[in-house]
Amino acid sequence: MTEYLLYYWPGIPGRGEYVRLVLAEGGADWIDVEREGAPDGEPALSDILSDTSRHHLPFAPPFLKHGEVVLAQTALICDYLGGRLSLAPEGKKDRRFALQLALTIADLVAEAHDIHHPVAAALYYEDQKQAAARAAETFRDTRIPKFLGYFEQVLKANPDSQDWLVGETRSHADLALAHTVDGLTYALPNAMEAALEDHRRVRDLSRRVRALPAIAEYLDSDRRQAFSEHGIFRHYPELDA
Amino acid sequence: MTEYLLYYWPGIPGRGEYVRLVLAEGGADWIDVEREGAPDGEPALSDILSDTSRHHLPFAPPFLKHGEVVLAQTALICDYLGGRLSLAPEGKKDRRFALQLALTIADLVAEAHDIHHPVAAALYYEDQKQAAARAAETFRDTRIPKFLGYFEQVLKANPDSQDWLVGETRSHADLALAHTVDGLTYALPNAMEAALEDHRRVRDLSRRVRALPAIAEYLDSDRRQAFSEHGIFRHYPELDA
Repeated sequence: MTEYLLYYWPGIPGRGEYVRLVLAEGGADWIDVEREGAPDGEPALSDILSDTSRHHLPFAPPFLKHGEVVLAQTALICDYLGGRLSLAPEGKKDRRFALQLALTIADLVAEAHDIHHPVAAALYYEDQKQAAARAAETFRDTRIPKFLGYFEQVLKANPDSQDWLVGETRSHADLALAHTVDGLTYALPNAMEAALEDHRRVRDLSRRVRALPAIAEYLDSDRRQAFSEHGIFRHYPELDA
Repeated sequence: MTEYLLYYWPGIPGRGEYVRLVLAEGGADWIDVEREGAPDGEPALSDILSDTSRHHLPFAPPFLKHGEVVLAQTALICDYLGGRLSLAPEGKKDRRFALQLALTIADLVAEAHDIHHPVAAALYYEDQKQAAARAAETFRDTRIPKFLGYFEQVLKANPDSQDWLVGETRSHADLALAHTVDGLTYALPNAMEAALEDHRRVRDLSRRVRALPAIAEYLDSDRRQAFSEHGIFRHYPELDA
């Protein structure tokens, strides 16, 4: 029986990708339910969201089903899986810090989404292009350097390793940062080329994550979905530097 | 010696308020460092943010210092304090769900902020008024009902109590939802009057939280800062229904 069921919208990597990377690197037995089909007797995404008898209800995908546990919020799912799949630091304080980092990455991801949808996620990009151009400029000029500078500093100050954000080895926070760098590089290749030149520890971390054997195998598989102009990270050349 | 040091920008309730409410309801001994002064030998906010030797570095306020622990991310701080001050559910699954709820509330708070600053937090409201009007409309018409409907559902399905979001008694998640309702009511009184009429469990929860003796005393004290047009929840009448 498959152990982990991931529920997320099909067709984009989206926030579900942060969970997929942890499942892949952790060697888990998992199904991406909306793409691969629910196992016999297991609910579909809409069954869970509309189940009014369920107390531990998710507000929105992604969410994870693991036996009777149903858990939402990307960073919290990654912390939960990290603890089970040896992708979270062992000490309490370091584990909490990895979750803090994952939440900080989630804030960056929300800002990255909002540059193409500053007015409302429910409206088309074409109906908010002018606001998007201004949002993207601030994001490129001040927010990317601030966030990457922060992660650079964390990498530098890790007493246990110069290669990973927290602890002696890779954790879900490293996978999340690497995917975010990949997404931002897809969306804003010019801005990110310059930013990564200034933040080489972050650049090298992303390369290190992509080279992990299980991650490399996943990235090369059919389970990996491509970035596109339907997701969080969208390449609109007019928004780049 | 004061046990908990809260670091946040002075002058607004902001995200720091979620932490203050937990400290107040938990009967903690705490100092709001930037307003009340750092105790002897303790760092100021800027000292912590600029300490390049610190590995567990916050990206931004609010953050908490508790002995050697420095912790950022509002919901994570509330979960940490909740565990120490009897304001988090006891069982593992319920405690995780309270954190999931706090993170969902944080998402709502970020959306509430973005209606007056859709383009960039760094720009003036006056320079993004047109985009703000459109953002506010979508937020009022679709996002408030979606979020309040979700919390209404969670309250209804709690098997242990009809009065609180999770478990038998109040947790940090209830305090956070009540404060968010208060903030939204300050910002959008007309929209919220109608929305709370449709979501009476959420309305009653907010009243219940405000009536908790320690919360009532805090709200009446000098430590409580008023909402204003410098904070997350801003009352611009043109953005209301």
